Amino acid sequence: MSRTETVRLEDADGRVLAKKLIAPRDLPHYDRSIMDGYAVAASGTSVDTGALLKIVTGTRIDPGECMQVHTGSQIPEGADAVVMVEHTKLDGDEVEVLAQVSPGQNIGRAGEDVKKGSIVFPEGRQLKPSDVGLLASLGFIDVTVYERPNVRVIPTGEELVPRGREPCAGEMNESNGVMNLLYARRFGGAGSVHGIVTDDRKKLASALVEGIGYDLIVTTGGSSVGRRDLIAEVVNSMGKVLVHGVAIKPGRSVALGFVEAEGRKTPIVCLPGYPSACAIDSMVFVDPAIKKLGHLPPSQYRTQKATLTREIISEPGYRTYARVAIENCMATPIRAKDAAIVNSVSQADGYVIIPEGVCGFGAGSTVEVTFLE
Amino acid sequence: MSRTETVRLEDADGRVLAKKLIAPRDLPHYDRSIMDGYAVAASGTSVDTGALLKIVTGTRIDPGECMQVHTGSQIPEGADAVVMVEHTKLDGDEVEVLAQVSPGQNIGRAGEDVKKGSIVFPEGRQLKPSDVGLLASLGFIDVTVYERPNVRVIPTGEELVPRGREPCAGEMNESNGVMNLLYARRFGGAGSVHGIVTDDRKKLASALVEGIGYDLIVTTGGSSVGRRDLIAEVVNSMGKVLVHGVAIKPGRSVALGFVEAEGRKTPIVCLPGYPSACAIDSMVFVDPAIKKLGHLPPSQYRTQKATLTREIISEPGYRTYARVAIENCMATPIRAKDAAIVNSVSQADGYVIIPEGVCGFGAGSTVEVTFLE
Repeated sequence: MSRTETVRLEDADGRVLAKKLIAPRDLPHYDRSIMDGYAVAASGTSVDTGALLKIVTGTRIDPGECMQVHTGSQIPEGADAVVMVEHTKLDGDEVEVLAQVSPGQNIGRAGEDVKKGSIVFPEGRQLKPSDVGLLASLGFIDVTVYERPNVRVIPTGEELVPRGREPCAGEMNESNGVMNLLYARRFGGAGSVHGIVTDDRKKLASALVEGIGYDLIVTTGGSSVGRRDLIAEVVNSMGKVLVHGVAIKPGRSVALGFVEAEGRKTPIVCLPGYPSACAIDSMVFVDPAIKKLGHLPPSQYRTQKATLTREIISEPGYRTYARVAIENCMATPIRAKDAAIVNSVSQADGYVIIPEGVCGFGAGSTVEVTFLE
Repeated sequence: MSRTETVRLEDADGRVLAKKLIAPRDLPHYDRSIMDGYAVAASGTSVDTGALLKIVTGTRIDPGECMQVHTGSQIPEGADAVVMVEHTKLDGDEVEVLAQVSPGQNIGRAGEDVKKGSIVFPEGRQLKPSDVGLLASLGFIDVTVYERPNVRVIPTGEELVPRGREPCAGEMNESNGVMNLLYARRFGGAGSVHGIVTDDRKKLASALVEGIGYDLIVTTGGSSVGRRDLIAEVVNSMGKVLVHGVAIKPGRSVALGFVEAEGRKTPIVCLPGYPSACAIDSMVFVDPAIKKLGHLPPSQYRTQKATLTREIISEPGYRTYARVAIENCMATPIRAKDAAIVNSVSQADGYVIIPEGVCGFGAGSTVEVTFLE
């Protein structure tokens, strides 16, 4: 994805530079005082403790003279150092210097922070507020950044009814659409949600065709291998399923591939319908896809070491994402049955990721908890 | 700050609930199959490996019968378990059961996830995408949340000129305003930036009076004790400076207090003008202020253990925030002089926070690096 846009600095936080930025001028662009005090000529003549200097005004000083300056003031001609006001004593139109001064002291030289013509930031830099501050100091008012990947979320399932309508038995309010819209935004994308699509080949195909205009398609539901799980089949009919089923739990029925039409090829991630599986697969597969498309650096999740209060059993051969609640560096696994109780949702703080080759961790083990969301 | 607003679920990520949410119905709201397969009567009669069950349709089954169900299907009357389709063999209008089935198996009972009338989330919950998904499942379409604290950023300094204008010697383009606007947003606030205010008591006072209409005022520049550092004086004239100067470096000249007019009292943080000091003080003081005002949980910064490649010296009595670059778990302190060079800005990955009572850390020490921004 190489589309770019120009945004004002006010809107540039977290955005990724689409081209390197060259300093249009020195920073600072003049020799300046970095303290409040008096500019003096420290070299040649000795400005030592006890020296008395005559205060002058204007744009230059001679030996034996000094000029009052503030932080940011231009250094007058003839001066090569600044004595901090705290190290002086005012005596009529003279100043007594109370400390030794060496040439260059308390002066910021032109170009010392940034040299005119140097690279301020390379292409691909993700801007943070202090970066934006630096660019503002250099006189930038806007920057050219990569567009946010445009993600189309397509919720599927004939049991789904829109929010705002009371579901009958056998029906459910659609929820994965909005959840994945919010994930897409958190991951750095822009997103929108298609209306609910029932488990019908033609309707699914038509939603995917419309999705080809986006940078990434994310479907939810129907990714398994049941009679109503048609997504993989439809993707194969207009592109290719490259991966179907992965060794992670929850979330093993995810499918990855692309759809293609009119010379345009769009990647697609087909997420399972179970909310917990859908959420894990979104973090494991949709996040890096958006990062890649948007030239964004990978997510760095916060982690914390903790001691397990009871064992976690996992199925060997699967990478397992086990929800835990954390209190005082103790991690309590949330049992499958507990996970059905609403309070456990609030209690789940993070995940212990159990590698494929391990059957779990015993009570008392030290584990690393990852705060995925 | 107790103002609230109602936002759609699509806009609820990261927002804080202003009141607890009560489940308007059970989740699921009916007994449902959690697998594709066949609903059977497992209790009383034995449905054992090898049993042959007649497939029926409709809304109820009798012993010896079964009904095809999908994930999410309502469980027919008379059934109390679901056999996964993988554990069956279809034989005409009969199904052979290939595994043992126990009552309740593969059935999600009404209210098992959330009981109608129970508290889904308490007041103060900061919503994440999976929370929003749960609320969507329960039929919510919007939520009442606390408003984002409205932050007024006031850049001050007579040396400042607006961006878009080329600064002369002795002038600088204003940059702390936009940096702090972006910080305020990252911390969870809404923000806006006042025009540049020169170091003039009357103009400063007038900007602060206007700022009283906001939830938090953040000024930049003029917080020190020089002749032009008037902020503290002006704050005291219309409110109170509670703290002026703190033992942290960079950033020791910060002032904290409040301004008051017409019965309204607004907290104020006066940040120093040096960008690095301004940034640290923003993270140390503005962040928690916004969190407190917005009922938000405290920031949890990512940290990493690393080995110092060379020593960091800090002044005892000050908590020092030392910038470091990280590579392969090795942290290289960025020297004060290096920090003036632009590449060091890109290289600085995080901070080593050196406590007040310590003079620094030697080369080879293991330190914790905090990724503040």
